[in-house]
Amino acid sequence: MKTGKLWGKRFEKKPSVLAESFTSGRDVRGTLPADERLIPYDLWGSRAHVVMLAKQKILLKKEGRDLLAGLRAIGKSFEKGEFRLDPSQEDVHSNVESWLIDKYGVEIGGRLHTARSRNDQIALDMRLYLRDCALKFFAEILALIEVFIAQAKIYQNTLLPGYTHHQPAQVTTLGHVYLSYGEALVRDGGRFQSWFERFNRSPLGSMTGYGTSLAIDRELTARLLGFDGPCANSLDPIQNRWEPEAELGFAISALMNHLSSLAQTLILFSTGEFGLVRLDDAYCSGSSMMPQKRNPDPLEIIKAKTSLAQGALVSLLSIGRSLFLGYNRDTQWTKYLIMDLVDECLLAPKVMAEMVATLRVDEVQLTNLCQKGFITTPDLLERIVQGWGVPFRRAKAAMERAVKLSAAEGGDRITLSALKRALREEGLSLKIDPQVIAATQEPRSIVSGRKAIGGTSPSALKKNIQSLQRTTPILRRWLAQKKKQESTAKNLLAQMERDF
Amino acid sequence: MKTGKLWGKRFEKKPSVLAESFTSGRDVRGTLPADERLIPYDLWGSRAHVVMLAKQKILLKKEGRDLLAGLRAIGKSFEKGEFRLDPSQEDVHSNVESWLIDKYGVEIGGRLHTARSRNDQIALDMRLYLRDCALKFFAEILALIEVFIAQAKIYQNTLLPGYTHHQPAQVTTLGHVYLSYGEALVRDGGRFQSWFERFNRSPLGSMTGYGTSLAIDRELTARLLGFDGPCANSLDPIQNRWEPEAELGFAISALMNHLSSLAQTLILFSTGEFGLVRLDDAYCSGSSMMPQKRNPDPLEIIKAKTSLAQGALVSLLSIGRSLFLGYNRDTQWTKYLIMDLVDECLLAPKVMAEMVATLRVDEVQLTNLCQKGFITTPDLLERIVQGWGVPFRRAKAAMERAVKLSAAEGGDRITLSALKRALREEGLSLKIDPQVIAATQEPRSIVSGRKAIGGTSPSALKKNIQSLQRTTPILRRWLAQKKKQESTAKNLLAQMERDF
Amino acid sequence: MKTGKLWGKRFEKKPSVLAESFTSGRDVRGTLPADERLIPYDLWGSRAHVVMLAKQKILLKKEGRDLLAGLRAIGKSFEKGEFRLDPSQEDVHSNVESWLIDKYGVEIGGRLHTARSRNDQIALDMRLYLRDCALKFFAEILALIEVFIAQAKIYQNTLLPGYTHHQPAQVTTLGHVYLSYGEALVRDGGRFQSWFERFNRSPLGSMTGYGTSLAIDRELTARLLGFDGPCANSLDPIQNRWEPEAELGFAISALMNHLSSLAQTLILFSTGEFGLVRLDDAYCSGSSMMPQKRNPDPLEIIKAKTSLAQGALVSLLSIGRSLFLGYNRDTQWTKYLIMDLVDECLLAPKVMAEMVATLRVDEVQLTNLCQKGFITTPDLLERIVQGWGVPFRRAKAAMERAVKLSAAEGGDRITLSALKRALREEGLSLKIDPQVIAATQEPRSIVSGRKAIGGTSPSALKKNIQSLQRTTPILRRWLAQKKKQESTAKNLLAQMERDF
Amino acid sequence: MKTGKLWGKRFEKKPSVLAESFTSGRDVRGTLPADERLIPYDLWGSRAHVVMLAKQKILLKKEGRDLLAGLRAIGKSFEKGEFRLDPSQEDVHSNVESWLIDKYGVEIGGRLHTARSRNDQIALDMRLYLRDCALKFFAEILALIEVFIAQAKIYQNTLLPGYTHHQPAQVTTLGHVYLSYGEALVRDGGRFQSWFERFNRSPLGSMTGYGTSLAIDRELTARLLGFDGPCANSLDPIQNRWEPEAELGFAISALMNHLSSLAQTLILFSTGEFGLVRLDDAYCSGSSMMPQKRNPDPLEIIKAKTSLAQGALVSLLSIGRSLFLGYNRDTQWTKYLIMDLVDECLLAPKVMAEMVATLRVDEVQLTNLCQKGFITTPDLLERIVQGWGVPFRRAKAAMERAVKLSAAEGGDRITLSALKRALREEGLSLKIDPQVIAATQEPRSIVSGRKAIGGTSPSALKKNIQSLQRTTPILRRWLAQKKKQESTAKNLLAQMERDF
Repeated sequence: MKTGKLWGKRFEKKPSVLAESFTSGRDVRGTLPADERLIPYDLWGSRAHVVMLAKQKILLKKEGRDLLAGLRAIGKSFEKGEFRLDPSQEDVHSNVESWLIDKYGVEIGGRLHTARSRNDQIALDMRLYLRDCALKFFAEILALIEVFIAQAKIYQNTLLPGYTHHQPAQVTTLGHVYLSYGEALVRDGGRFQSWFERFNRSPLGSMTGYGTSLAIDRELTARLLGFDGPCANSLDPIQNRWEPEAELGFAISALMNHLSSLAQTLILFSTGEFGLVRLDDAYCSGSSMMPQKRNPDPLEIIKAKTSLAQGALVSLLSIGRSLFLGYNRDTQWTKYLIMDLVDECLLAPKVMAEMVATLRVDEVQLTNLCQKGFITTPDLLERIVQGWGVPFRRAKAAMERAVKLSAAEGGDRITLSALKRALREEGLSLKIDPQVIAATQEPRSIVSGRKAIGGTSPSALKKNIQSLQRTTPILRRWLAQKKKQESTAKNLLAQMERDF
Repeated sequence: MKTGKLWGKRFEKKPSVLAESFTSGRDVRGTLPADERLIPYDLWGSRAHVVMLAKQKILLKKEGRDLLAGLRAIGKSFEKGEFRLDPSQEDVHSNVESWLIDKYGVEIGGRLHTARSRNDQIALDMRLYLRDCALKFFAEILALIEVFIAQAKIYQNTLLPGYTHHQPAQVTTLGHVYLSYGEALVRDGGRFQSWFERFNRSPLGSMTGYGTSLAIDRELTARLLGFDGPCANSLDPIQNRWEPEAELGFAISALMNHLSSLAQTLILFSTGEFGLVRLDDAYCSGSSMMPQKRNPDPLEIIKAKTSLAQGALVSLLSIGRSLFLGYNRDTQWTKYLIMDLVDECLLAPKVMAEMVATLRVDEVQLTNLCQKGFITTPDLLERIVQGWGVPFRRAKAAMERAVKLSAAEGGDRITLSALKRALREEGLSLKIDPQVIAATQEPRSIVSGRKAIGGTSPSALKKNIQSLQRTTPILRRWLAQKKKQESTAKNLLAQMERDF
Repeated sequence: MKTGKLWGKRFEKKPSVLAESFTSGRDVRGTLPADERLIPYDLWGSRAHVVMLAKQKILLKKEGRDLLAGLRAIGKSFEKGEFRLDPSQEDVHSNVESWLIDKYGVEIGGRLHTARSRNDQIALDMRLYLRDCALKFFAEILALIEVFIAQAKIYQNTLLPGYTHHQPAQVTTLGHVYLSYGEALVRDGGRFQSWFERFNRSPLGSMTGYGTSLAIDRELTARLLGFDGPCANSLDPIQNRWEPEAELGFAISALMNHLSSLAQTLILFSTGEFGLVRLDDAYCSGSSMMPQKRNPDPLEIIKAKTSLAQGALVSLLSIGRSLFLGYNRDTQWTKYLIMDLVDECLLAPKVMAEMVATLRVDEVQLTNLCQKGFITTPDLLERIVQGWGVPFRRAKAAMERAVKLSAAEGGDRITLSALKRALREEGLSLKIDPQVIAATQEPRSIVSGRKAIGGTSPSALKKNIQSLQRTTPILRRWLAQKKKQESTAKNLLAQMERDF
Repeated sequence: MKTGKLWGKRFEKKPSVLAESFTSGRDVRGTLPADERLIPYDLWGSRAHVVMLAKQKILLKKEGRDLLAGLRAIGKSFEKGEFRLDPSQEDVHSNVESWLIDKYGVEIGGRLHTARSRNDQIALDMRLYLRDCALKFFAEILALIEVFIAQAKIYQNTLLPGYTHHQPAQVTTLGHVYLSYGEALVRDGGRFQSWFERFNRSPLGSMTGYGTSLAIDRELTARLLGFDGPCANSLDPIQNRWEPEAELGFAISALMNHLSSLAQTLILFSTGEFGLVRLDDAYCSGSSMMPQKRNPDPLEIIKAKTSLAQGALVSLLSIGRSLFLGYNRDTQWTKYLIMDLVDECLLAPKVMAEMVATLRVDEVQLTNLCQKGFITTPDLLERIVQGWGVPFRRAKAAMERAVKLSAAEGGDRITLSALKRALREEGLSLKIDPQVIAATQEPRSIVSGRKAIGGTSPSALKKNIQSLQRTTPILRRWLAQKKKQESTAKNLLAQMERDF
């Protein structure tokens, strides 16, 4: 019998499997060989290549048939978890070719590499892999946007102190905050779309970067692999093997920055000192030594992984700097960098989605903080500007005095007496009655008053929710269409294989 | 009388003014206060804001008229170089407001800040500034693409040794290489377009991030400032004041990576050892001590500035990591980072354009190197695969032997005898005659043979040129349209001002 | 008359001049030409060089005398602020040489560059400049360590909740925390010392990197410039012109990381929610629009500048990567990077020193938080392990239950009843009386009980204070000795000049 | 039967096992769980801890005896490759504790964690691991320095063109270049020494950062673990868990920068165009498709890994930025970052050592290039300054003209006629005879003439070799002493264990 986890007696719930896998890191878990991830892409690429070679009469039909049978057999074996990379072979490409040579002899297997170079093979495999990653990230982002919309609906009227400089600034609502993340995430998704539009081109046929004298049909292979077409210059994708990697890295990095800031906000909000929210037990961890702890580990780890993303991006860009003409082996390392980064960060949006969706908020404390720290003062100031036509700058000066005087009285809201004295001292004589003061410092009426686009009033929030709700189906359609393009390609390839 | 430069007696030409300014760095030249760059944007923003306030009756018409007159006066003074920032005022915003207060009294000037916060003012100024930068980079990139197309046309048939791993790989043409940069630059341009599509939204009216109770019209100000509309959530642009900066930084960084690699290639090509090209005197510099030097300084400095870009991007992303809810002062520094980066890199494409356009190539040496280093071997190998139906892998093994044997004979092309022996040793008996060997190793016929899309044959190059030539007008139209949007906005604003 | 600052009516104190200059950034202030900073170092280097040339008979005494007079004249003019760099000359070196040629004719002035190259001149200037920076940072760090010691003495018994994961972990004292920063800062200082030991070698005489046939005396110039000796190989300092820059950059970056973490801690501690400390008015700023704000800007900006440091370090290392043999112009940009970084960060320790020294702590709230959030539980757990010989892991399990049970009772300390039930449920039957529970959860007795080295008891803190107090005089002596070495060198040089 | 590698028929030698493992990357090889590396350190730490607990009577002797027996048993099992981490346990610490609990019951095993926290356990494990890494890097660097010294002796007189800006600058010798790397590597080694001096302190006993009320003896455990003493403040090592990692990361990054520049230099030197050196077959790789290739992969990969190091350093520093008081889970990721970096780079110095030691140089081509590209001009210029007392600046101007005139004559050395005309045109009438011109442009006499410290003359090189040769034994002694300290500690611990 094994002992259990060294903490946890205090928790009501089992830890989330997702959170555990996200936070456990690589302590007791190693990483896969990089090329294991590439096996399905390598096979897809080779199948498309062989079909094309045969169609172009560069291979005999019979040769093509054997090669395709072999490639499909490897695919099946891989799906069953039986095809392992032989470390004595250099990489996935040589593993596959060797398997075919072993199986069919060099007269057949030795033809797979016709009109190919490892340069274009790995460029192809990576592009297929990265394209998948881009779509996966996009799907996770989309799901998170929907969580933000749903939570924004629930909490559109839930008061929240808004901050600047970590100091209470102005009252807002939790829904308003979630919508701001919804907006940011749409841009994050947009970066993965931009990636797709920029890089969904087939490098296959580029060879070493300088093309081939064999009569290959690059349009066909591009179509069979779900690309929008072939890269228009054979050198470009070989020379720039850091570029799709770096652009994906930047998209991940920007996304992680958004998540890290929400993480930091939730970490602070969930402290006892702020006491605004409570993270679900399933996303907290205990301590090996302190029995009372409920630590927000997944959020801290999102922050750490954001640092990871920034470093990986630097490495990717650095590798791509000042490269000499043509392929440089240096770029091989972009493979590991981007794969590690994807592995570390792909689940981050989902972790955040679950944590946000299970968050409990303390409405009492939220409302309470919305009446402290002079947080309602800016709105009172606007009221004075608006109601009495005082120039902003003079009203502001008076209000600064009023804060000081009210604070001296021991409170943290503007008092009538303080305001009057302050106005007087600034040479402003306005008739202000207690009701105005009170009403204008009432948080709920404050948030309702901010009606301009993007503001905190129910109508403004509704408009923001609606615009996001109009956006998500468009994004979802885009994703479906890209998936469709892929499955169409796969079907066409299967069809052409069957025709052999 | 001042002494002249400490070197240069050897040069035929004066140094290029552009190159000098690009390479001189900040040795004898300081940098401007950051906010000087923002003056025109700040004024534009304030004019649009005042027009809107008056339209919304938040200001009296008369108040608006004075403020607008003041803002225009500052603008004129600035254009004449007479409006300088007073360092005792904190920034451009307070400088402008103070000027108005000094001129019109606090009763008028003190109203400029109505329904504004410095948070949204700087967010606006920066977005206008960054938008301009994005369009300027785009224009430079476009001009460079056109240089690449023009040079590719000139040099489409000029033989060039293609490399991988810094070793001769396969013959290509200089035109082919330039076209690969044309392709890469289209993506670079695309990143600035993506920036524009993502960020051409007005943050004005966001206030501190939480909106305002004053009845502002954000659609109107967005239109008057040439935006596609207002940001849909007021917190988003304030919280994420690192994001447009970082995305521009990434776009610059990727562009610089491409330029740095071409720079590195030209540096090597222009060494005496390679001897393939000669940089124009106007872009070389001498030494303070070595009279013989013709140093490729602008190219080296492109490499250095690429490193700069990578570091600046890191700083921008780092500032934006783990920010707490709302504005954080930390983000102020994104301003200097991106401005410095723009200043350092904006001219890089033009420098490269001039250097490429004035490059002299040594066709004799180019052709010479296209016959050395067994560079023609891969094409001979393809010929054997194609002509005799030998499996690629077997033909490759034979050719490896042939290289070794030919090298032992002292040459660096495959000899007939070596090839024959090699084939025999690999168990291949093919009838190969001297003509085939010779013809297949003839560089010009090699490049002509690679006909697939993206390849080096005249027809393939022509196709690539044509596709780029179809692209550039589209890009140019896009740019014109964006400029149009800006001037339309300015005209509309002027119109509305006149209506006061 | 100019209007004043746009906020501040609320503050008791004028803002600190230091804080203002630290936070204002480059909004209304540009940067100096880089080489202006180098003028004094360039002159010092040239004077030492000329003295040596004359001593070695490479110059006639008379020639040396004129050159020295000229260099001294430039120095005087510079001190009076009258020597400005002429931008039409490339850099400080050519400015100085041109001045001498203009003054004394080429027959005299044209000899300054004898046995020199700009490569070794700039390497020398930068090393002198960087050495000064290293000593300046070291002095600032030392001063900050002394503030930490002084504050630690004042606050050694001031209770403070210690955190892990942003959650209350165990009680500590403010003194304990300050001492941890004292320790970290000693290492920070150590990095600048390491820099000095590693790089206080003279590159002068390296020429272009390959030496000179002129009979120079590098030992002498090294001595006249306060170095520990000449670089032992002429190529090394020229090839590696990124290395002293990057190492200084790393030292700054590590220092800033420490400061940023203290900044982040103080930012949170000074929020109303934590309410543990209050920053002095002189280091807070107001808002242009929110009258109530007291923003911790200098602390936020320390965080931003930490991001700056990380990016600059990357750029420095990136420039130094994969350089070809000998000087590369790329490295010129290391100059601006490190100068900017020094300018941004040199005052950070002083800002922190002043903010820490003027911090007010709220002992009531501190003590209050030291009794909440089950923060005393770990110490109660240790008490049970110690007092009843229960295996740690069993006691921990029981205590986890006790936390849960006590929380269910509504409190945030362990209650006797909860503890008893928890122990019982874990199969432990211990006799525990109320006094033990109470005493063991009394914060002051808790901190006093942790007597091991590095702990929180008065004796342990005293020991830590003493060890730091033994260290600072050693550091101060080191600094004095390095300063002495410099002034000795200057005196010797002046002496030799007088002997002409 | 498996097919062999897909290239290689051309090579005389088998690839170096070292080079293969260095270049193969993670294509077909995954990474270990991070904590596997930590098992021996974790066990060592726990043994020292248990011995101390028993000595302090915190454990009964009998309890200590069982725990020690268990820990030794795990150690033996690990050495036999039989102790694997159970992924259902969180990390190495819980794996070990669980094993002990399973074996001896919770009454014994449950006491291992007495007076410990995972925070100080991992801090300890990492410090022991990093210390080992620092010593391993130091040893590799030392070995490489010795290779540089040995090669410098062999090649001290081998002429080599020295470059600046990738252009021939001045003649030097290969020995001179190797010595410059020797110097740089001494500084690299010094950084690992600085690391050791700064961080060889025991964090054990820090607990969560706030110490313990149990009567532990931190001096003793520090001694038993080979430390120079305990960390003087318990919070410091827990708060700064990024710092030893980042400093090691910087040391690695600086080292890699040096190696990358030598790599880049050798890559260029080994091109056919430069043709100066030939890499040994064992360190070149072929192509999957181009039979002629001899690619310098290990050198390219050194460059890539240098980029890796820069990114990892950024991530480490970024994680350590703006951390709140106490342990933050974010820092867990520093573990993977530094481990990956060590794995990638530890062998880089050895790879370089082997490649340098097996390099073949083409003395003919070296000598040939030492007479081209006007590379001897600067020395001729010095000769004129020296021999005729011409001011440097005038001589330089004349020599620039002479270069231009000589080039017009078609050569790339200064001709007598050109020089004469140039001098005349500059108004200098010197009597210069052909012998002087010839002799002064003779490369061997040039390098011999540069006698100042650090120069290229035989005597200067000898001096540099001697100074390095005096340094290496000191470094070796330092290393031996540190190893001794470790073994002494282990012996003492074993002794104390036996005394149970």
